[in-house]
Amino acid sequence: MLLLGGCAATTQTPDSIKSAPAAAAHKRDLAQEERNLALVLNFSEIVFNKHDLVLGKTMMTESYIQHNPHVASGRAAFLTFFAKVIAEHPQAHAEVVRSATDGDLVFVHVRSTGGASKNGVALVNIFRVENGKIAEHWDVVQPVPDTSNNENTMF
Amino acid sequence: MLLLGGCAATTQTPDSIKSAPAAAAHKRDLAQEERNLALVLNFSEIVFNKHDLVLGKTMMTESYIQHNPHVASGRAAFLTFFAKVIAEHPQAHAEVVRSATDGDLVFVHVRSTGGASKNGVALVNIFRVENGKIAEHWDVVQPVPDTSNNENTMF
Repeated sequence: MLLLGGCAATTQTPDSIKSAPAAAAHKRDLAQEERNLALVLNFSEIVFNKHDLVLGKTMMTESYIQHNPHVASGRAAFLTFFAKVIAEHPQAHAEVVRSATDGDLVFVHVRSTGGASKNGVALVNIFRVENGKIAEHWDVVQPVPDTSNNENTMF
Repeated sequence: MLLLGGCAATTQTPDSIKSAPAAAAHKRDLAQEERNLALVLNFSEIVFNKHDLVLGKTMMTESYIQHNPHVASGRAAFLTFFAKVIAEHPQAHAEVVRSATDGDLVFVHVRSTGGASKNGVALVNIFRVENGKIAEHWDVVQPVPDTSNNENTMF
């Protein structure tokens, strides 16, 4: 469910949320969502593990909309940025631990290793799929700390 | 799709992922997933916006499994932790911008404001729902930086 502007969670009372399930917001096509997920898993493997930017490029829209604040928008800017990451960190690897979908959105929870952060990084990538290509990307990124107040790991 | 251990994204070739859609991994019950989403939106509103920990407590399992490294595991530890957050930041507010589901998992992409970070915080909360209660929590948290290389915001 994409929550635009004044979203249900903030403008309705808890009771009204209970009585108006989020399912009403839009019709979901699970088979299409699973195809979108398969595309994102494939893209993640090709780009973030195989480091094959030539093939990866074919899976993205040219206008790829970027929300990561460290990267300019557009496919070309991402490819330039990530080529530098690979050159600096040839062991960079991303393990998708769990995922979820909604409409044209795919969320993947990722354990990223082989980069600058000694304990690795926890991140969630959110991709929007448009006509079988990756069209938009948000992420949230957090280095795994040295210590934790629980024994459960971040994953 | 929960990707356990050697997950599809890392143990299969891209071609085999293409030919074996993730849908085969498990059967999904969309109506149940939407009920889980409604529960999580309700819980988020009650706890993170209304700051009603008495009601929030009733929506969590006592054994609530915590993966946020700053908080001990268990429901009681979370309630103690978040009571302190509220006391220090009474304006703390969490807007769910988008969400996704998979089986018993609900992912929510959140814009958090009113806390210690001057530009607010981007985060993804992942909750596992068990018998209508919040049973487990992972998150990834990133302060919104002062500047960005694109005009799209982190949301």
